[in-house]
Amino acid sequence: MGHTAAVAGASGYAGGELLRILIDHPEIEIGALTAGGNAGTRLGGHHPHLFPLADRELLATTAENLAGHDVVFLALPHGQSAAIAEELGDAALIVDCGADFRFADPAAWEGHYGSPHAGTWPYGLPELPGARAALAATRRVAVPGCYVTAATLGLLPAFAEELVEPDVVVVAASGTSGAGKAPKQHLTGSEVMGSASVYGVGGAHRHTPEIAQNLSGLAGAPVTVSFTPVLVPMARGILATCTARLRPGADGDRVRAAYERRLSAEPFARLLPEGQWPTTAMTLGANTAAIQVTVDAAAGRLVAVAAIDNLTKGTAGGAVQSANLALGLPETTGLPQAGVAP
Amino acid sequence: MGHTAAVAGASGYAGGELLRILIDHPEIEIGALTAGGNAGTRLGGHHPHLFPLADRELLATTAENLAGHDVVFLALPHGQSAAIAEELGDAALIVDCGADFRFADPAAWEGHYGSPHAGTWPYGLPELPGARAALAATRRVAVPGCYVTAATLGLLPAFAEELVEPDVVVVAASGTSGAGKAPKQHLTGSEVMGSASVYGVGGAHRHTPEIAQNLSGLAGAPVTVSFTPVLVPMARGILATCTARLRPGADGDRVRAAYERRLSAEPFARLLPEGQWPTTAMTLGANTAAIQVTVDAAAGRLVAVAAIDNLTKGTAGGAVQSANLALGLPETTGLPQAGVAP
Amino acid sequence: MGHTAAVAGASGYAGGELLRILIDHPEIEIGALTAGGNAGTRLGGHHPHLFPLADRELLATTAENLAGHDVVFLALPHGQSAAIAEELGDAALIVDCGADFRFADPAAWEGHYGSPHAGTWPYGLPELPGARAALAATRRVAVPGCYVTAATLGLLPAFAEELVEPDVVVVAASGTSGAGKAPKQHLTGSEVMGSASVYGVGGAHRHTPEIAQNLSGLAGAPVTVSFTPVLVPMARGILATCTARLRPGADGDRVRAAYERRLSAEPFARLLPEGQWPTTAMTLGANTAAIQVTVDAAAGRLVAVAAIDNLTKGTAGGAVQSANLALGLPETTGLPQAGVAP
Amino acid sequence: MGHTAAVAGASGYAGGELLRILIDHPEIEIGALTAGGNAGTRLGGHHPHLFPLADRELLATTAENLAGHDVVFLALPHGQSAAIAEELGDAALIVDCGADFRFADPAAWEGHYGSPHAGTWPYGLPELPGARAALAATRRVAVPGCYVTAATLGLLPAFAEELVEPDVVVVAASGTSGAGKAPKQHLTGSEVMGSASVYGVGGAHRHTPEIAQNLSGLAGAPVTVSFTPVLVPMARGILATCTARLRPGADGDRVRAAYERRLSAEPFARLLPEGQWPTTAMTLGANTAAIQVTVDAAAGRLVAVAAIDNLTKGTAGGAVQSANLALGLPETTGLPQAGVAP
Repeated sequence: MGHTAAVAGASGYAGGELLRILIDHPEIEIGALTAGGNAGTRLGGHHPHLFPLADRELLATTAENLAGHDVVFLALPHGQSAAIAEELGDAALIVDCGADFRFADPAAWEGHYGSPHAGTWPYGLPELPGARAALAATRRVAVPGCYVTAATLGLLPAFAEELVEPDVVVVAASGTSGAGKAPKQHLTGSEVMGSASVYGVGGAHRHTPEIAQNLSGLAGAPVTVSFTPVLVPMARGILATCTARLRPGADGDRVRAAYERRLSAEPFARLLPEGQWPTTAMTLGANTAAIQVTVDAAAGRLVAVAAIDNLTKGTAGGAVQSANLALGLPETTGLPQAGVAP
Repeated sequence: MGHTAAVAGASGYAGGELLRILIDHPEIEIGALTAGGNAGTRLGGHHPHLFPLADRELLATTAENLAGHDVVFLALPHGQSAAIAEELGDAALIVDCGADFRFADPAAWEGHYGSPHAGTWPYGLPELPGARAALAATRRVAVPGCYVTAATLGLLPAFAEELVEPDVVVVAASGTSGAGKAPKQHLTGSEVMGSASVYGVGGAHRHTPEIAQNLSGLAGAPVTVSFTPVLVPMARGILATCTARLRPGADGDRVRAAYERRLSAEPFARLLPEGQWPTTAMTLGANTAAIQVTVDAAAGRLVAVAAIDNLTKGTAGGAVQSANLALGLPETTGLPQAGVAP
Repeated sequence: MGHTAAVAGASGYAGGELLRILIDHPEIEIGALTAGGNAGTRLGGHHPHLFPLADRELLATTAENLAGHDVVFLALPHGQSAAIAEELGDAALIVDCGADFRFADPAAWEGHYGSPHAGTWPYGLPELPGARAALAATRRVAVPGCYVTAATLGLLPAFAEELVEPDVVVVAASGTSGAGKAPKQHLTGSEVMGSASVYGVGGAHRHTPEIAQNLSGLAGAPVTVSFTPVLVPMARGILATCTARLRPGADGDRVRAAYERRLSAEPFARLLPEGQWPTTAMTLGANTAAIQVTVDAAAGRLVAVAAIDNLTKGTAGGAVQSANLALGLPETTGLPQAGVAP
Repeated sequence: MGHTAAVAGASGYAGGELLRILIDHPEIEIGALTAGGNAGTRLGGHHPHLFPLADRELLATTAENLAGHDVVFLALPHGQSAAIAEELGDAALIVDCGADFRFADPAAWEGHYGSPHAGTWPYGLPELPGARAALAATRRVAVPGCYVTAATLGLLPAFAEELVEPDVVVVAASGTSGAGKAPKQHLTGSEVMGSASVYGVGGAHRHTPEIAQNLSGLAGAPVTVSFTPVLVPMARGILATCTARLRPGADGDRVRAAYERRLSAEPFARLLPEGQWPTTAMTLGANTAAIQVTVDAAAGRLVAVAAIDNLTKGTAGGAVQSANLALGLPETTGLPQAGVAP
């Protein structure tokens, strides 16, 4: 227990998942838990599944309450992290699950989020080239968006090895927890169960420019992204189907070899054996991305599919993975390697 | 009750949905019900929701048992329709929910179904140009595949009005009933609930060449189709996300106008008001396709989404719609216009 | 189309289900649709599954807007029906889906609902002894609660024929739509999917005294009811497991005979064949209660199970069934006899 | 890693859950994995969520393959454990997840299972009075049935402190994984989703006599049990609603005090704070039973509700909890204390 951690936004889904992971983390001790409107209540009323922490009181989300920890995880609404981070200064490692510091291009941020750009922090996707070194040297981490993690990992080898054209279509099925915990009419059980729906179609979803940023970085050139999120009747999980036209000479063997080469050493981005396709169930509660790829010769396309748990690898698990690197711990420390199924 | 109808394959899901519709059809009286292995049992053991027919006995699926009706609906495993149809001859209108007679190109059939091509029947998608006239004059109907219905209707205006390039990506979420009633390991409730998965990736799904056939027909030129089906935790429904690059000059106004022009008179293919996107729930149990379209200017793409109930508009409802036309009845006779929600 | 009907509360789940049924009702024409906070909007934004009515505007729920119809269906929050009814007077048949007028005993009402008792109307459960005659002669109907319908029909023969002791345990699984359309934290899809939960335990649920009222009426003596509702991950459906100790001499044969005698003539309360047990799926969208009963000799108990669709037989279908009787129409007019499955 | 463990029946759901737990168990190393028909295949094809074990080969379930481990977990079909256990002898601790050795009364076994009674082993429910001592001294453990665990823990304080009459009604909602992994028609996703159903009604379910055995042991006198299992649309979880008439003098305060007294020291049977009711979601993936109790004064009944994950506390977690005791380890070693939600 070399380190202490505070969690801001502990009553939300991302906060709860951070705590679920940290409960079993051998090198991090859970410190202050804070919330906004839920400050003053007990955690057990919000996350009854976290029995060992049921009696913990939620403090107000202030720099004062968060100070004095080695790590501060921020699971706050977009736009609230910058002020807290500034107040906290450099004493703590700050890992932000929000979008505020993910973008290198202020225009990409402002076009989709509408508020002034707060800055750019090292990006918490260790599987990206160069990311581990950057994360090992930082006191600030911007955790990627959940859809972004799935789409980026699914296409990483394809772009890193120049196998596809820079015009990508991503359609990603998602569970409802990605939309957060606040009750909304279209997210009630009655509306969600037995129904699939789309939202943010036509480039409107905020994760679109973030996917484009990552794939463009891998390609070394601008990549166009058509992204459609699909809400399906499950609480957790993202299944991203990603396709792009093959470049000349990119056939099935080269594609397979590239995916094996780029993923075989990854602890959490797992290329499945040929013939086995990802399901979100195989990643539920685990920090794993399950990936498969094939070539559609008739259509001249590479099709890659990546499944993650949006709350684990897609948010809280990814946050802890990056925190491990920034704290100098083994990257896999305390992270669930096996999912919960069926 | 001017007509009598027999249903072959009555104990399966397509057969059950045919009966659900026919129970309320004012011009068709339900005659013989037949089955394969379930012959000799009562319908109530297979479709307990069809209370008015619970005591009806299932006969063996033979031409003798099916003969003497004005209409014969075939809901049989692929490859079994040709022999029955030949025996029945021209006395009855035959509406085949199987794939056997959907393909104009024998090679497209044989590449995906493996058996000799049985022939080509008029295609039961009345919304296609020219289809209503052909259906009004036929004694044979080949009902489209469920994914095919969704994808074709979603892109019909785009190709009919030359708005997009002939390189299409379709990713379609589907409920489990499309896979039929036979129990299989990966279709058990334990495996399906809480999980999204893909199958038939990379052009392997049998509906791929059928989508290509329809879109190529609309375009008047070959269209390449990348199709990925996604299994999601619901019993019914298909939500097809369809995208293609816009041709020069095709902007949002032209796209909207084309969709309105092509769909406004359709009784069952409904373009939603701008801003409202399809959900499968709004089509559950109805013969409706709910369609919406937008332009992603940044990606240079048209994105169309179509939702249907795979068993209703996608199979049995589409079959009755075509049968109405072939029988000279108003096209909408007996077909559910409203869905069951929530 | 001999009659016109207005629906107050049309944007809620009960209102939507009333409209789904009335769209296909051959003797009732849909007139004014009214709402509270949603007045001024189009129905298509609230019930997109009701395509034929999508463009209908919601008026304010006032007596003025509801007047001039032969039937007025009230699907309002508890406590709002009395004022409207008084203003409407006797010109229209009023069918109230709320609880206001269900109770004969003001104390039973006030103990669970807290407001002054508004009165007692004929009770809209035609299957109860004497109910059809009362409904045929009334201009006012109080539609039963959804759990109450299931529990009462499940135990009706047992109490009508004096087979069980007056101490009943009912545990009923329910879908989420029974809780209404307003979004609440514990009813979001994320919380509901993959989870079963209880609420209103220990007699706290408002349907408890209503079940007791019905069973006591059947028994001719007070019946004690222990009722526990269980929320399960589905949108529609109630499955009520009902048990009471057998009275001396009540064995399996007598129980079976009593259930057959009491239910065989009922169009909507169907005793299943021996060995087949109710599922909510077999009643989804239908006005059917599916019932089965057995004797547990070792425990000395009768166990009856009743399944209904809470929105159909449990609310809107039951309302139309009673309205048919009050209007002098055949009881089954316009009511769905078959469910939608799978 | 002081101990090695073999798992027989590793490709089934109980076997998979045992492995999920053992992967993180600090004192048990996973040894041989065996299967029946799946012998010779890799674990990854059956449990893709167990990434760290994906390449492990399944051996045949023989005493030879299971020998040489400190613990052998048997997750076999009922009736197969006795032969294996005899061959293995006393060298290993044997923990049987099957029903074979749960019954003290051969008649209770034979009445529900039909084969000769194999014997009686110490019962693996540590929360029962005296169980911990027996488990600490045994080389054989019979793990309770999943419904039995929920019902017994829910009523343990009530019977241990003589608060209720010996006539119990238990209605328990369950997910589908309790029915095992073999595909069956009524367990397909299409049939299960959107539907609640009953089975084994009227005392027919095999867990009935096992519940009676436990409660009778607590009461010191025969207890009559009416048990109805309800299948609901979720993969995991049991929510047992348990009720019995209060004995004279047993009021709310005495009930609350008894539950607190009996459960406050239990690591895995947790009495929730007053006003909070169990959900299965709060136990998903955890070895926790969540329990609440109230008094229904009007009905004269105690109502207790217990939620568990049928695969964790209900099977595999309970097995490891007992194994810990039998191995002399702290009872909570390696067992998940927090669930996975939402």
